[in-house]
Amino acid sequence: KFHCSLLPILSFLKETKTKHDMRRFTHCIKVGITLVLVAFLSLLDPIYKQLGENAMWAIMTVVVMFEFYAGATLSKGLNRGIGTMLGGGLGCLAATIAQEIGGIGNAIVIGTSVFIFSAAATYSRSIPSIKRQYDYGAMIFILTFNLVVVSGLHADKVVHLARERLSTILMGFVVCIFTSFLFFPVWAGDELHDSLATKFEELARSIEGFLEEYFKEISKENQCNPSFHFSCCKSLLHTKTKDEELAKFARWEPWHGKFGFSYPWNKYLQIGEVLRELATTILSLKGCLQSPRQSSETAWQSIKEPCEAAGKSLAWTLRELGGSIKKMRRCQTGDLIVSKLKSMRVELSMAMSPSTLGQLENGEGLAIANFMFSLM
Amino acid sequence: KFHCSLLPILSFLKETKTKHDMRRFTHCIKVGITLVLVAFLSLLDPIYKQLGENAMWAIMTVVVMFEFYAGATLSKGLNRGIGTMLGGGLGCLAATIAQEIGGIGNAIVIGTSVFIFSAAATYSRSIPSIKRQYDYGAMIFILTFNLVVVSGLHADKVVHLARERLSTILMGFVVCIFTSFLFFPVWAGDELHDSLATKFEELARSIEGFLEEYFKEISKENQCNPSFHFSCCKSLLHTKTKDEELAKFARWEPWHGKFGFSYPWNKYLQIGEVLRELATTILSLKGCLQSPRQSSETAWQSIKEPCEAAGKSLAWTLRELGGSIKKMRRCQTGDLIVSKLKSMRVELSMAMSPSTLGQLENGEGLAIANFMFSLM
Repeated sequence: KFHCSLLPILSFLKETKTKHDMRRFTHCIKVGITLVLVAFLSLLDPIYKQLGENAMWAIMTVVVMFEFYAGATLSKGLNRGIGTMLGGGLGCLAATIAQEIGGIGNAIVIGTSVFIFSAAATYSRSIPSIKRQYDYGAMIFILTFNLVVVSGLHADKVVHLARERLSTILMGFVVCIFTSFLFFPVWAGDELHDSLATKFEELARSIEGFLEEYFKEISKENQCNPSFHFSCCKSLLHTKTKDEELAKFARWEPWHGKFGFSYPWNKYLQIGEVLRELATTILSLKGCLQSPRQSSETAWQSIKEPCEAAGKSLAWTLRELGGSIKKMRRCQTGDLIVSKLKSMRVELSMAMSPSTLGQLENGEGLAIANFMFSLM
Repeated sequence: KFHCSLLPILSFLKETKTKHDMRRFTHCIKVGITLVLVAFLSLLDPIYKQLGENAMWAIMTVVVMFEFYAGATLSKGLNRGIGTMLGGGLGCLAATIAQEIGGIGNAIVIGTSVFIFSAAATYSRSIPSIKRQYDYGAMIFILTFNLVVVSGLHADKVVHLARERLSTILMGFVVCIFTSFLFFPVWAGDELHDSLATKFEELARSIEGFLEEYFKEISKENQCNPSFHFSCCKSLLHTKTKDEELAKFARWEPWHGKFGFSYPWNKYLQIGEVLRELATTILSLKGCLQSPRQSSETAWQSIKEPCEAAGKSLAWTLRELGGSIKKMRRCQTGDLIVSKLKSMRVELSMAMSPSTLGQLENGEGLAIANFMFSLM
């Protein structure tokens, strides 16, 4: 019987897994095609004549900036562009000043400027708010600045070099954006959206699974392993970092599908936070499963019914909310949900008052009420 | 006199701005010095004559591989070295084959090899176990392979180029390792070790804080905000990603301080996991604070004493364990702790049996017992 209930979950997992695998596969193909494109583009005679050795910067740009998510690609590309321009401009300036002075002053100016700008940019990389969005740009700034300053020592072609490099980076950037956005784009926003809807479903399933486990055990009196439903919740607890990353990329993504400009991605993070709190509550119920239950059979039966009803309505609520988020429509059953949850709480507290084991649902009921309040 | 009064302020600032800020500052200085060193090294006449334009690869190596933690720097450097060698070698081979064939076959061989190797390496980057340790190496492999293959189309100096590039990368690598490891190194292992000990302390403090809050409120009958103690626990829940990253870097770090080779960093991750579970339990007690407590004053008083005693011994236990981990000595009071916790559980279950509110400590007691079992 347990196996039966596992089957649809497994097939569901398989489905999501294969979908993710497919995207990974497509991503590899896209990277390969982009690189071939750039390689041949930079080897075309007219372009090669103009760019020469600098063609390698186009390849480098593609390799470095082509990320799995479209938003990540765009963010890295823009960071790279801005970092290169800033670094190149300041580098030009420093190199020119150094050459104006000449002699031993030249080396001093170069050494000092390299030290100051590198240290300052490195420090800015360790500030959390800058690190989150512009870490890569700062690195490219340091790199370009140093390259321009050092090359400026021996040759007088700094401006020329900077212009060429920028145009090759631009070429790589355009090809990258072209392949990344037009052929099977992988949007971080879509992923965040789907993962949030899945979380609701997972929580609903683990509440149901927990209740089943809890009331099954007492009738069979054997210790079984309830870790399956909890591993779901546990992995959900550690999604914070990933969600934040996805939201970061999603903010860079242009209008696509149902997501407009300045779509409120922050709301997703907030809902995710609330869901993680709910997962914490569900996880803490694990203790109830492990604790010995010495209560009489009758007391058990008296709480069984309201608890199961509550569990069912909780799961239903979660599914309803998850569904409405997935389909991006206003949850029309909102009032119904609230009244249902309220009556559930009343029922539970009635069932609980005479028994010592009501603890089980009280915490859960509270959590869900809290959760509802923060959602509506 | 002014100097005298400034001194304590400075020392105070030093203390409050924490060790972390100081390390960040040192890191910036180190990066600056390293870059100046590399810039002047690559501009020395004998070296410049040999390396020429390739000198920029040394700068690039330093900028890209110099990370905050010593282990991260070493791992990136080795990844870069191996990636460059593999990519360069295969690139040479492909370019030679392409030139042997010549004509239109040349372009076909180049296009095919670029596509196959880039796609394969990109796919390997999306496999979790490879992504964790060798992500950067795979990227460098793609980069070098493409550069060598494309440059091989127009010039016959592939081997020469590869050798030069490798030697400049080696130069950057050596300078990097030199500054990173010899001057105020920041070890990821130290950080992981300290953060684990701090976690024990934080949990102990939040248990104490929770109990204080719980028993204070009933006597004063006012709603106060207990969020402070919980934010600690909450932030602790999200340390998984950071811990795993630190452990990853720590594995690369050579013998230093009290940490030998093949130090069991995995144990740290396991203990961290158990602590996060405990934090989950503590967080779930939040519900108890929010729930109305209608019980009589006498019932309250009867559970207050054993609960507070239990909380105290839990906090003591956590501090003892944290201290022994911090000092890296065997926890000598192990037997004492186990017997103390056992007697605590007996006491709690005695105090609980007549009252309906014993729920509070039961879950906690269970969690800590579970925790003790997995630690000893």
